[in-house]
This record gives sequence, C-alpha cells and structure tokens, in this order.
Amino acid sequence: MQFRLKARLLGIATEGSLVVLLGKDAMRANDLRTGDRVLLSMQGGTPIIATTNAAHNGYILHDDEIGLFVETERALDARSGMIVEVLAAPRAECINLIKKKMEGKKLSYDEHHAIVKDIVSRELTDVELAYFVAACTMHPLAFDETVALTKAMIATGSTLHFGSPTRPLVIDKHCIGGVPGNRTTLLTVPIMASFGITIPKTSSRAITSPAGTADTMEVFADVSLTIDKMRSVVGSAGACIVWGGGINLAPADDRLIRIERPLSIDVSELMLASVMAIKASVSPTHVLIDIPYGQGAKVETLDRAKELKRQFQAIATELKLKILVLMTDGSQPIGNGVGPLLEAYDVLAVLKNDAAAPNDLRDKAVHLAGMMLEFVGTAPKGKGESMAADAIKSGRALRKFNEIIDAQGRKELPPLGRLTHDVLAQRTGTIVSIDNLSVARIAHAAGAPATPNAGLLLFTKVGHAVTVGDKLYTIYADSEEKFARAIQQASIDDPFTVR
Amino acid sequence: MQFRLKARLLGIATEGSLVVLLGKDAMRANDLRTGDRVLLSMQGGTPIIATTNAAHNGYILHDDEIGLFVETERALDARSGMIVEVLAAPRAECINLIKKKMEGKKLSYDEHHAIVKDIVSRELTDVELAYFVAACTMHPLAFDETVALTKAMIATGSTLHFGSPTRPLVIDKHCIGGVPGNRTTLLTVPIMASFGITIPKTSSRAITSPAGTADTMEVFADVSLTIDKMRSVVGSAGACIVWGGGINLAPADDRLIRIERPLSIDVSELMLASVMAIKASVSPTHVLIDIPYGQGAKVETLDRAKELKRQFQAIATELKLKILVLMTDGSQPIGNGVGPLLEAYDVLAVLKNDAAAPNDLRDKAVHLAGMMLEFVGTAPKGKGESMAADAIKSGRALRKFNEIIDAQGRKELPPLGRLTHDVLAQRTGTIVSIDNLSVARIAHAAGAPATPNAGLLLFTKVGHAVTVGDKLYTIYADSEEKFARAIQQASIDDPFTVR
Repeated sequence: MQFRLKARLLGIATEGSLVVLLGKDAMRANDLRTGDRVLLSMQGGTPIIATTNAAHNGYILHDDEIGLFVETERALDARSGMIVEVLAAPRAECINLIKKKMEGKKLSYDEHHAIVKDIVSRELTDVELAYFVAACTMHPLAFDETVALTKAMIATGSTLHFGSPTRPLVIDKHCIGGVPGNRTTLLTVPIMASFGITIPKTSSRAITSPAGTADTMEVFADVSLTIDKMRSVVGSAGACIVWGGGINLAPADDRLIRIERPLSIDVSELMLASVMAIKASVSPTHVLIDIPYGQGAKVETLDRAKELKRQFQAIATELKLKILVLMTDGSQPIGNGVGPLLEAYDVLAVLKNDAAAPNDLRDKAVHLAGMMLEFVGTAPKGKGESMAADAIKSGRALRKFNEIIDAQGRKELPPLGRLTHDVLAQRTGTIVSIDNLSVARIAHAAGAPATPNAGLLLFTKVGHAVTVGDKLYTIYADSEEKFARAIQQASIDDPFTVR
Repeated sequence: MQFRLKARLLGIATEGSLVVLLGKDAMRANDLRTGDRVLLSMQGGTPIIATTNAAHNGYILHDDEIGLFVETERALDARSGMIVEVLAAPRAECINLIKKKMEGKKLSYDEHHAIVKDIVSRELTDVELAYFVAACTMHPLAFDETVALTKAMIATGSTLHFGSPTRPLVIDKHCIGGVPGNRTTLLTVPIMASFGITIPKTSSRAITSPAGTADTMEVFADVSLTIDKMRSVVGSAGACIVWGGGINLAPADDRLIRIERPLSIDVSELMLASVMAIKASVSPTHVLIDIPYGQGAKVETLDRAKELKRQFQAIATELKLKILVLMTDGSQPIGNGVGPLLEAYDVLAVLKNDAAAPNDLRDKAVHLAGMMLEFVGTAPKGKGESMAADAIKSGRALRKFNEIIDAQGRKELPPLGRLTHDVLAQRTGTIVSIDNLSVARIAHAAGAPATPNAGLLLFTKVGHAVTVGDKLYTIYADSEEKFARAIQQASIDDPFTVR
C-alpha cells in the first residue's frame, strides 16, 4: 500500500544503486525490511525504483520524512520537503537472469539488455551486480554473449553523431592502459584534428594509476563537460579530450568498474564490451585500439595482446565498425614525467619541438597518428608517420591543441610540487628494466593524481648506461606527509634494475 | 596519514559492513574514495576497520565531523562528539582468498577462518561477501571445506556450556523449515525439559514465511535475550526458546543469509555449516535435525532429504557430535493456525489437551520428542513416544512451558485480528493437496509475522472430504489494507486442490 513522506536530502553518495532512508517505524508499519525495493513517485515526475535503508528514530529523520541519497535525489529531481509517494515494489525481474548466468547458462541479447537496463537505471543493488560480475568471471561470456552485451550497452546509453558532409571522417581511439606517462592521446588528437579529421575523445580518470588521460588534460582545460558542451567543442575545434564519466555514454561501464574494483577483478569480456560500446557511442567511421603489452602493463604478454586484438576485431566486425588494433611496447614508462602536470609538460615539450622533449613519447604518438592517417585514407601507405611528424614540426598540432583547450575552457598551469627528492643510481651498469607498477606506486604515494603537481620525473630509460650517483629520477610532492611517504615507498620499491 | 574528526551518530543501519561517512573535502584531502577502508580508533578503545561513504558538503555533516552508521557506532562504542582518529587502511587480506575460491581452488581451514573472521568483524563489505557467496555457489564447497567452514564459524563465535554433573544431558534441535504452522519446537522443548534434559534452544525469525519459531514464541514471552539472561533462564527452567539473532552464536550466519536473500540463493554447504556451527555453539551432548520434505517445503524430494541427512551426519562425525536426523512429512501445513498468534493457540491447545487441538501437530511433536528421549537414553527403545505423550497428558509439559515463559518474561496474548474472511470450498470432493507456499503467501499478505495476530486458520487437511460451501480456512487481519490484500491474494492463489 502506498504511503506519503516528505523528502529530506541527505547528501550521501552511494556511487551505486538508488537508496532511500526510511524510519524503522515506517518500515515496520509497511512490512519493509532493509534492502527491500520501493517505487517512488512525485507529482509530475517519472517513478523510480530504490532500495531501502533503515533509520533509527530520533537521529536525522523526522517521522514524516524519507531520506534521499544523492543519486536518488537526482533521479527523482527532488527538492527538500517535496511529497514522495512510496509503494513496495517486487524484486527486479532480471534477478532470475543473473541466477541463470550463475548456473552457467548462456544469455540472449534481450536478457543482456534487461540486465544492462537495470544496471543503468541503478535499480540493481551493488550486491546484485556483484553476483552478475562474479558469474561473468566464473562462467566467461561466449563471443556472441560479449557482442550481445556490447550492443545492450550501446542501446542503453546515448549515441552521438559528429560526422558531416564536409568532415565525414570521425575517428576514435582507445588505449588499454597501465603504462605510466603514456599520454599519446594528448598528441594524436590534435594531430588528427589538424588534418580535418573529427576526433571526439572521451577518456577516463586514473583508477589506480598516477594519472589518466582525463587527469592530465584537466591540467590544461576543463574536462567535465556536458554532452551539449562536448558537441559545441567538437563543432568548433573538430576534436575534444573530455572525461567520459561526465558524459556517461555507456553508463553501465562505470558501475561495473566500481564493482570490480574491491577485488581488482578485470573481466576481459566486460572490458571488451565497455570499450567497444563507448567507442560505438560516438558513431565513428574508424576506431584505433592501442594494446601496450609488457611486464607491469595491463596486458603482460604478446600472446594475451594477440588474443585481445582478435577479440576486438571480431566484435568490431559484428558492430560494422572499421577497426585498427596496434600492439605496442608497454614494458617501461613512456615519456619523462609521471603524474598529471609532469606528463602535461612532456606533451607541451613535444608539441613545441623542444630539444629536451621525450623521444619515446613523440615517436609513439607519431607512429599511432601515422597509422591512423593511413587507416582513414588521409595519408598514402607508408607516408602516415612523416605527415604526422610534420604536423608537430610545423606547429599545426600545437595550434590545434590550443584551439581545443580554449574551446573546453583553458586553465592556468600550476607550479610543480615544491618538495623534490633526487633518487640516485646505487651502482654502475646498464638499465635493463624499469618497473611500471613500482613507478606508479611511488608517484601515487607522492600524491598523483589527486595532487596534480606531484609525481616523478625520469632521467633515463632502459638500455642507457648509468654510473653510481647519476640521477635516476626526481620525486615531486606538495605536502610533507606525501613527500615522506613517497621517499619511503621509493626506498623499498626500486623500479630500476641495473646490471 | 592520520586525521581526527568528531563523531556524529547517523542512526542509519546498514545491517552489513561497518560504514562511516566522510565529507568530500576530507576524502579528497586524504586521497580517499568511496569504498576505501579506514582504520578508526578512539582513546582507550579497540581500533576497527570501516568502509567510507562520501557526504556532499552542507548537508548532514559539519567539516570537522565523521558520520557513524549504527553498526560502526556500536563497534566503536562511540558517543556523539567523541574524537575519532582516521587512517587509510589497506585492502582486507582475505580478498585474495575470495579470489582464489572464485578461481575454483580449494581453501584450507586457516583460509576459511581468515574469511569468516573478516565477515564477523564486518570488515568485508556486502559486495566482497557477495563474491564469496557467488564463488561458493558456482564452485560448491567440497566436504572437507564445509567442515573447515563450520569449524571456523564455531571458532569465531561464542561457545556456551550448559551441562552440569546433575544434568549432564544437553540436547539441541533444528528444523530445516519451510512448512507453515510447523511449531513443534514449542512442544518438544518443554517435553524434553520436563524430563530433566537441558535444551537451550535458539530459533530464527521468519525471513519469507509467515512465522518463525522465534516469532511465535514472542507472542508468549520476550525472545530478544542477552547471553547472560539466556544462561539464567536455562539455569532456572532447564530450557529456553530465544531468538538466535539476539544471541549471535554464529555471527557469520546472519550476514551470509542477508547476502543470499536478494537472489533467493540457498547455498546448501553454507546452510549446513551455519546450522551445525549454531548447534555446536551450545555444546550439546546430542543434536536432532528435522528435515521435512515435500512439495513447497524447503526440501522438496526424499532424495534431497536423504542427501542432506548424509551430509549432516558426516559433519557431526567430524565435530564429534551425536546426531539424529529425521525425515518427516512436509507436504502440507502442520497444525491449524498459520501466523504467530494462531500458531501459539495451536501450541496451547495441544499442551492443554484440548479436544480441538490439531492432531498432526501433537503427533509430530510426540514423535520428535519420543525419538529424542530414546536417542539420549532417557526412554527405552520403543517407549519414547508414549513417554512424550504422557508428558503432555499429565500437564507436566504445560507446567514446564509456563516456567520457561515466566523465566524469559511473560507477555499478554493479544486478541486475534479483528477482520475475518471465510474461504469456502468451490466444489465437492476430497482434498488432494494444500500448497505450503500459497498458504504462506496469503498469511503474509494478511500481515504475518509483522502483525502477530494476522494469518490463516485452516479447517481441513489433505485426505478429508469437503462439500461445496464448507469452510476451508479463515483469514485474520488487523488492518483494512492488508485484509483486502490477503483476500485478493487468496482469490488468485488457491492453496487447496479438491478432486
């Protein structure tokens, strides 16, 4: 039976499902228990389903109030004091589909769509979603299921269209990640755009790494754009580099990642579906996937990289997307800086043709952009890299980058972290490896990415000779505590192997 | 790095893991994100681990406050305004064990213990626990793992000892459940105790059924007893019937059940481990397990009942517990009443030797008690049932029941639900079945168990002849809305099959 309560906004974010808080008395009177589902409606609004939590009496709720967590407040578009009608709701229908998957049975497109729809509407609780992720881990999706899931994620998100008769080519790219300093997107996007190719790039923030593409771009410009603002940036500059989490093109992805995080699960088929759904959602004519592989990267072996490449190509065929998958060296950090601001300096140095610019970052960006130019047909076979290099040398890429920054909203670059500590070589020899994960841990301890001007600056790379006392890298930090923590981390976690 | 905040009690119950609320600014400043773990300590107290939720600024928290959910407040024994020190904490160590289980690998006793310890301390979040339950569903525990889990649950809970030189026999019983009206515990406990056998019974409340043993006992007496009060009741009356959730003998059980509930998962090995751990925790000399089986009971087939019987016996052997497992008819409701008060009336009618007392309930209780009396050696072989029947006939069982009620704290019986509706036979013939689940749904719709005086009163059983217009059952309710809902449910969900 329906009952009515006044909305009280709690300001508590679950970052997951829609939750409401009900007084214990109201729950008992209406036969509700913690975790039960209720249908909420407000005059003139669309009803939503939320999960109940119980409030003890005499704390934050009055007897006639219902507490709305942040996500619920937004979904209802509620204001404080508005009347909310509450009605007990049955279990989500897709629960039986999750159970079916747990039994090892295959799901159809319609069944995947039902699950993804309830993920996106936040009707499924975190616990229910964990069962789905667990089922996908223990009974990996077959190829046709991965395709079905990808299509369901596309169907439940927004789809944008950027092509035009005068600029028909729309390219998007994605990098599997895990390699510190690998900020090629900030170079390839302006290079491609400088050739009149539209490239509406959405990127992620760092989850466990010291900087994601969105974190580094945020040093230069606003990245939390609405869809409308993203459209206008791409309309004027022909390209953008924005935070995907703010655009929500494949909204199921964020929730899946959050549920995978506590166990550091990385379900390959879920990743494939999410990446391809996000790419497809900007309606590109061409898609580039970069798979860096090597010790400490997300993909550690060439065999695994080849397997992923095959899967990306197969899904693209099903989605009728033109795809180019490149496998690149991810065995050591790329560029000199690690951390948002230090990586931003690397990007600027390359675009400005500085003598001190990191060659590996420039070379990788030129390689990727060159392959893309040939892939879309702008460059003749074998000429892509020289055309990409020329876009940098001529200053055209830098001008385009500034255009994108201005369109998104330029920001002042902050000063580098005021605290620095040099780490020196303990022996003479040749550097045989630099561990990605160890570099990431030290930069993270120093404060990156939350503190954008913290991180590491590397002075040498694999294959170089070093003498005892040579500077290997400098730690930058902005707070005494994180500075001490990073130095402590560096003392027990040496990324460099010298022989 | 550590920071200090003032406790603010939120009064919000998660019923799961320990959660604290931190302001977004405090989280950002300390590199924390929703779902991260923190070590909380207060002067003079034991530090605990909790999970963070983020509060938007300007709602319920001041900048210098930390919000404590109910379970966290209790674990810290915190009062409003006390200073809490907060320190980022690493991931729970048992996460890797959960991942190991998800990979289909077997876990040792020590590994099960590590997981159960973190379940009991509420360090594991609901999502992490869901992964464990999912792993146990998709990779069922081997027998030695079930034994290891049972022992870990015993080791992480309290163990009570009730035996004494003058009363060495301590018996405990458990029924798998799912059969409406099956309140034999309220009869067998006083019967056994009337023979000087100690029987410290903990029972559950209904989860989806219209009444659990604890719900029905609560009509007569307080059932939410502390361990000390339970000890004193058993010390004086030789027996008790209390709510297990208040005693917390195998605290992992409650959390596992809560995580299984959203998907109605019933992991057999988790149930076996929980039941045996709860039984073992009162250090009984003998244990009786009742497995009712039949359509609509928890155990639907004889084969499944036999398989469970074998597993219970095997675990008992490992735990060195003497066990008797009985398989009983669970194909239709037992007794006439369904719902806490109506079932209480049945129990009283049997104990008072009323002519109208339900024979099936009395017969089953006499059978179970008789088998127990023979099992513990109080009755000679073949004499148990007549001795149990005599305990009822003589009034000794009723006197003992009143003694237990007085020791726990007697309550006045409420009047029956004021609204009644008779459901009549639509055809003439013989009743061939009464569906347990359908009976439960109608009684639940009428308000049971939340409304103790609501439910059903059955007038006939399988095998009886009925004529069109005969009363089959009466619905009792106390609120117009639930009354209407129950009548509506009865109209679409007829429990009776007449041929």
